[in-house]
Amino acid sequence: MSNDYNYDYFNITFPAQYVAQVEINRPEKLNAFIEIMWLNLSKIFSRLSTDPNVRAIVLTAAGDRAFTAGLDVKAASQGTLSAPTSGAIDAARKATALRAHILEFQACLTTLEKCSKPIIAILHGISFGLAIDMSLCCDVRIATSDVKFSVKEVDIGLAADVGTLSRLPKAVGNFSWVKEVALSARIFGAEEAIRVGFVSRVIPAGKAAAVEEGLKLAKLIASKSPVAVQGTKELLNYSRDRPVEDGLRYTAVWNSAMLQTKDVADAILSGLEKRVPRFEKL
Amino acid sequence: MSNDYNYDYFNITFPAQYVAQVEINRPEKLNAFIEIMWLNLSKIFSRLSTDPNVRAIVLTAAGDRAFTAGLDVKAASQGTLSAPTSGAIDAARKATALRAHILEFQACLTTLEKCSKPIIAILHGISFGLAIDMSLCCDVRIATSDVKFSVKEVDIGLAADVGTLSRLPKAVGNFSWVKEVALSARIFGAEEAIRVGFVSRVIPAGKAAAVEEGLKLAKLIASKSPVAVQGTKELLNYSRDRPVEDGLRYTAVWNSAMLQTKDVADAILSGLEKRVPRFEKL
Amino acid sequence: MSNDYNYDYFNITFPAQYVAQVEINRPEKLNAFIEIMWLNLSKIFSRLSTDPNVRAIVLTAAGDRAFTAGLDVKAASQGTLSAPTSGAIDAARKATALRAHILEFQACLTTLEKCSKPIIAILHGISFGLAIDMSLCCDVRIATSDVKFSVKEVDIGLAADVGTLSRLPKAVGNFSWVKEVALSARIFGAEEAIRVGFVSRVIPAGKAAAVEEGLKLAKLIASKSPVAVQGTKELLNYSRDRPVEDGLRYTAVWNSAMLQTKDVADAILSGLEKRVPRFEKL
Amino acid sequence: MSNDYNYDYFNITFPAQYVAQVEINRPEKLNAFIEIMWLNLSKIFSRLSTDPNVRAIVLTAAGDRAFTAGLDVKAASQGTLSAPTSGAIDAARKATALRAHILEFQACLTTLEKCSKPIIAILHGISFGLAIDMSLCCDVRIATSDVKFSVKEVDIGLAADVGTLSRLPKAVGNFSWVKEVALSARIFGAEEAIRVGFVSRVIPAGKAAAVEEGLKLAKLIASKSPVAVQGTKELLNYSRDRPVEDGLRYTAVWNSAMLQTKDVADAILSGLEKRVPRFEKL
Amino acid sequence: MSNDYNYDYFNITFPAQYVAQVEINRPEKLNAFIEIMWLNLSKIFSRLSTDPNVRAIVLTAAGDRAFTAGLDVKAASQGTLSAPTSGAIDAARKATALRAHILEFQACLTTLEKCSKPIIAILHGISFGLAIDMSLCCDVRIATSDVKFSVKEVDIGLAADVGTLSRLPKAVGNFSWVKEVALSARIFGAEEAIRVGFVSRVIPAGKAAAVEEGLKLAKLIASKSPVAVQGTKELLNYSRDRPVEDGLRYTAVWNSAMLQTKDVADAILSGLEKRVPRFEKL
Amino acid sequence: MSNDYNYDYFNITFPAQYVAQVEINRPEKLNAFIEIMWLNLSKIFSRLSTDPNVRAIVLTAAGDRAFTAGLDVKAASQGTLSAPTSGAIDAARKATALRAHILEFQACLTTLEKCSKPIIAILHGISFGLAIDMSLCCDVRIATSDVKFSVKEVDIGLAADVGTLSRLPKAVGNFSWVKEVALSARIFGAEEAIRVGFVSRVIPAGKAAAVEEGLKLAKLIASKSPVAVQGTKELLNYSRDRPVEDGLRYTAVWNSAMLQTKDVADAILSGLEKRVPRFEKL
Repeated sequence: MSNDYNYDYFNITFPAQYVAQVEINRPEKLNAFIEIMWLNLSKIFSRLSTDPNVRAIVLTAAGDRAFTAGLDVKAASQGTLSAPTSGAIDAARKATALRAHILEFQACLTTLEKCSKPIIAILHGISFGLAIDMSLCCDVRIATSDVKFSVKEVDIGLAADVGTLSRLPKAVGNFSWVKEVALSARIFGAEEAIRVGFVSRVIPAGKAAAVEEGLKLAKLIASKSPVAVQGTKELLNYSRDRPVEDGLRYTAVWNSAMLQTKDVADAILSGLEKRVPRFEKL
Repeated sequence: MSNDYNYDYFNITFPAQYVAQVEINRPEKLNAFIEIMWLNLSKIFSRLSTDPNVRAIVLTAAGDRAFTAGLDVKAASQGTLSAPTSGAIDAARKATALRAHILEFQACLTTLEKCSKPIIAILHGISFGLAIDMSLCCDVRIATSDVKFSVKEVDIGLAADVGTLSRLPKAVGNFSWVKEVALSARIFGAEEAIRVGFVSRVIPAGKAAAVEEGLKLAKLIASKSPVAVQGTKELLNYSRDRPVEDGLRYTAVWNSAMLQTKDVADAILSGLEKRVPRFEKL
Repeated sequence: MSNDYNYDYFNITFPAQYVAQVEINRPEKLNAFIEIMWLNLSKIFSRLSTDPNVRAIVLTAAGDRAFTAGLDVKAASQGTLSAPTSGAIDAARKATALRAHILEFQACLTTLEKCSKPIIAILHGISFGLAIDMSLCCDVRIATSDVKFSVKEVDIGLAADVGTLSRLPKAVGNFSWVKEVALSARIFGAEEAIRVGFVSRVIPAGKAAAVEEGLKLAKLIASKSPVAVQGTKELLNYSRDRPVEDGLRYTAVWNSAMLQTKDVADAILSGLEKRVPRFEKL
Repeated sequence: MSNDYNYDYFNITFPAQYVAQVEINRPEKLNAFIEIMWLNLSKIFSRLSTDPNVRAIVLTAAGDRAFTAGLDVKAASQGTLSAPTSGAIDAARKATALRAHILEFQACLTTLEKCSKPIIAILHGISFGLAIDMSLCCDVRIATSDVKFSVKEVDIGLAADVGTLSRLPKAVGNFSWVKEVALSARIFGAEEAIRVGFVSRVIPAGKAAAVEEGLKLAKLIASKSPVAVQGTKELLNYSRDRPVEDGLRYTAVWNSAMLQTKDVADAILSGLEKRVPRFEKL
Repeated sequence: MSNDYNYDYFNITFPAQYVAQVEINRPEKLNAFIEIMWLNLSKIFSRLSTDPNVRAIVLTAAGDRAFTAGLDVKAASQGTLSAPTSGAIDAARKATALRAHILEFQACLTTLEKCSKPIIAILHGISFGLAIDMSLCCDVRIATSDVKFSVKEVDIGLAADVGTLSRLPKAVGNFSWVKEVALSARIFGAEEAIRVGFVSRVIPAGKAAAVEEGLKLAKLIASKSPVAVQGTKELLNYSRDRPVEDGLRYTAVWNSAMLQTKDVADAILSGLEKRVPRFEKL
Repeated sequence: MSNDYNYDYFNITFPAQYVAQVEINRPEKLNAFIEIMWLNLSKIFSRLSTDPNVRAIVLTAAGDRAFTAGLDVKAASQGTLSAPTSGAIDAARKATALRAHILEFQACLTTLEKCSKPIIAILHGISFGLAIDMSLCCDVRIATSDVKFSVKEVDIGLAADVGTLSRLPKAVGNFSWVKEVALSARIFGAEEAIRVGFVSRVIPAGKAAAVEEGLKLAKLIASKSPVAVQGTKELLNYSRDRPVEDGLRYTAVWNSAMLQTKDVADAILSGLEKRVPRFEKL
């Protein structure tokens, strides 16, 4: 099956039952992103979202030096971020094109947030700009102790526009810190990231160990009922953005169908009998 | 007065002036909840909400082993969570019944959030599933150091549906951690709970000491103007769910009436004179 | 230029290029606020918001003892918070006047949140009541290690109504702690503040060092493209209050104009050439 | 069965299969409402909401002269609306009691909006104040040609507070007209009501004919699948208050369960075979 | 008193007790707006909002030919709407200035919506562009039968940006029509305006008669309790923009203070005694 | 160019400069929709949305008898709406598949709402079910006088789930009527449709005349600045769903870029010189 998943700049493997691993693979450029990469990223996670053989996903990056250095600025500066050409083009028309471009780029990353299966990001080394945007669309963030984070965008003259500024205030419970790192682009490390709540685990033993930890968590999640797991992801994302009473109402409708699964009885029985339940594909 | 508060599976006492203590009391079953218990819980807090002799409430649980092991799964598996009976009942009609059931269960717990008086939950021992849902409806969460928490629902094949998934993302400032514990059902302890912000205090000296600490806090709150305290609870809950400017506008209308209380002058004068103010019942 | 900024109870200086420092100056009264002060505060930040010579602002307070003790209760108790005069005035009419007063007071503080330039608050000593309200309108909060915070309002018989109850739940990721300090008015220090995420830095070496640190951060921010910095502030504040997808949509429109700046090319080029870019005024 | 529904001031009958008629019955006082009446109204519609023998409801009023003259002002002026007693009671405490009273009154009327079955209001004669509030909680409004409407509340010195001001702007598509009638309390008739969209039908032939028309519509609705009908009411009410995309998302979850009903196949088959389908109780 | 209200391009008079009339006065230019006019408009309505001698306001325009032809395009085309100057100015910096300008212009018009007293607009003759924006901030719209409306902005190459596109969909219940007139800029008359719900009255007898009708309505409103009237305006505007349940909650808090007015008892008593009540200033 | 637009069941033509006409083409089945049709519909409007040669679109249907009879029920009853197969499939898994299907179907129709160019629907003959859903995604609705509308879904046992229930309450200003037609599925005609505001024009002279009228309107819109027209569509749709102040804020950002177009100067100049402006492609 893994043969099917062929996309430039990504390795997709299936290291355990129901677990997929997506590896960003442009290590010679510190995994910096060019346009084809975010288009492929979106295609990969759209497919994984409906692939019944996948229940949890780990997102990693090749090489020792970087999860990603962010946008490939050199490439971008010849495209979207090119210097304005002295008024030759109408500013309103240029804005229309830019807006369409940003919306498309955002939509590619949002594919991860909308993916029905949980995604665990393993962040190591240089994790700048897009690394923050992308990992905020994932569900769980695990870092190595040598990670170097930066909300880098102000350093290239722009406000981050593919997700960090919209998601970071809701992912982290220290708005002063969010402002500080987003306004200054200063680098911060694993210790700070865990303290403020940007990641939920730091693995001191290096990248390989962190990937191992991510896979372990993915296997644990993949062993649960997919009805329960996918519902949990959907309901948490829905509720993050809405009043509690709207969250409760949506949850009640959701579970009015989902409680009609055999998985509940199977899970309870397995629990009582201390054995591992097996759940049908979803 | 305490004689009046007679509800199966709960002990209600009044350990200090203006302070009520509600104790969950089914220790032989690890305080696991059966339906009558959440119905009673709702009745108790509805009454306390309008009882002028109560200004702060502490919620505790009997026995050393558990705050609550959560839903009594055995009982539930014979009721709502029973195995689906091979299509005999129309799935839409079953969904209608389930939705009504979930909404009613949610409403019972929401009674705590809507209770006009602050509630301090003292969490000890096993605090699984419903323990998280319920304590998230309380205002302050204090844990003993031996507490064992788990968002347990995925382990019985369902997405938590009586509040945790709607309230946890707004109570805790580490969305990666929220996802991790909700998707994996893994157990976490007091240290982790305080680090991520799920509880605001950990009491190392055991349950009795934690209850003592909770009562001390309750007494402190009960010594303040009830106009000020109840307004503070209402405005914080309102603002959690809405844009800042809506929070400000609601606050201005609220206080346009509430500042017309004698309590302000009394509180200021008492402060200047270094004596304890006495406030009229509310 | 600094000569122009003359407002009672405030010192405004310009310690570095593009950096303003606003110092609250009523140290003999622990910088307690009387009405003229919040009116002036609003005027100052309205002006700084559009002053092209300013790109980052540090808010400090004179004297060693207090950032501010909060509202000057003695003055207030002769004004808005005066004891109700036995029904002489119609309660609805009094409410109308009070509501107008609260809304105006709130609007003065919100000027800081709406100021287009980032504001760094340096909190030291007694930082009660209004200190919390005001600093929550700032972008970054830095504290000295001797700071003493209190959400003081319940102690004078009222629910905080000029911002704390609306902004604190969104600034800090421990709702249990938010409730605890707002309901009890208990004092908390720097260690607790950094742990729960109320401040993003604690400076152990005293107020002067903390101001120095704040100025250093302000200079760093002021060295970036003002287009990027002001957009970042706006988009973070916008997104805090809205669903992620609304944040993304607003961001795309915002940047459709803002990416048409020369600053992007200048910033990228400077980065490649390892030199400091210079950005046009905004 | 109809014997069971005994409530003072109301007649409840079942004029056709699956159709209930609720008649307000205090004609000697122009059906003016006293407290027991809105409490009973709420109880009646709560029961009808879950009564499987009922699929559509018609709300009418006894006597020729009035649907209702509104609140019984004389009774109210001895209760909630009594003249303020010269400051004897703290204004904040009085506000707390008033707020609780208004919320309870609102909740009684909202029972109609939340009732899972559609309600058709037949409005005739004097239909003042509460008649507007109440009928706005119903789904369909039908008027006789002699109806006299008035948003009466400003005439007794208050802004309407049990629903009209919140629901009228969303029920009618002429905000200028909404403001005009709500600010002036002027009387308007059937012709104006149908023109601006407050009612959907005017029956010239008098009250009996209007009731007949309402029953005819109720029977038509009651002949449809209750799964389809109740879903339609819920989804319209939900969507009225939310962005279109939220409406669509909620709808998709709702129908993910509801499309699993046998009613769809039965309805389609009956349609093809030109016979009347029979649907199971819900 | 009327002497005090001196503002260029406006006549302010007080034709009846508690009633103000604001007349736009630049008839030689078809009352086209230049910047000073919307600044003055805002100042006038800010003052009227808190002037205790005013309870209702009529907005009219001088001359027979036009309420207003809209923005003075000639003046604007030398200012904000001037042709872009071939890239000399950075597009992002120009956008920042334009955004500030639009926000300020919007805020001036919003002053009418926020004015605590109801405003009745009398629309006659040419009522283009700004006439629509401005009248949508008023509470009641009355037209003469010779009125000529146009959402004119697309004809000068821009999407209307000072309110029409935000308010028209909520003021009128025919979204197809809203789109049609906003996208085509076609002229429509009084008959169409009343049919779709843009105005609530058409006065066939000409401008003087329409002004008379407006004053009559203003006097009627001014004869009611100002507590009731101002609350009604506030609660309708609040509810237009929010879910019904938020509207109800805000209303309950609002009236918890406002029902404590003597006006209620006075209004009821006057009603019973068939005499005109007199209400204290607000 | 029109050769490029080849999609089964649709004819796409370009009857005038900048104007496209999309004709639904399955007249032998009353233009009833099968799955390939809504997939194609979405593809067509996605392309038109970014086709610089198109500025306005008219949506019509082939044949004299029907715009569309709605979903092809026969086809659907063998697919999604097939009778439930006696519990063989887990109800939760079936719900997951159904939800995905509904969301995809909804997204296809929403393509029309998101299309950057205005769409004018010409509705004639039988216009049931999907005709309502689809036309509510269009901007302008024009009907022939012989049109027969029905919100048909309850007649096949389901609540409408691809848009009608979410969009109709916001398109029409008579919520009583919306409920009536949606709950009863009764047929209504052109006169009723224009009265309640569902369409903005009725053309008595038959389908050909109505199409002519639609094209005339499309040409008028296509003659305006595309910057102005597309902004107007976007801002009206955005504002329909949000509070007025959010609409204003978004508008200000939008126009901060869009006012920098040459179109404004061109439009103004053309207006003064009474000639037809020509606008660059967008």
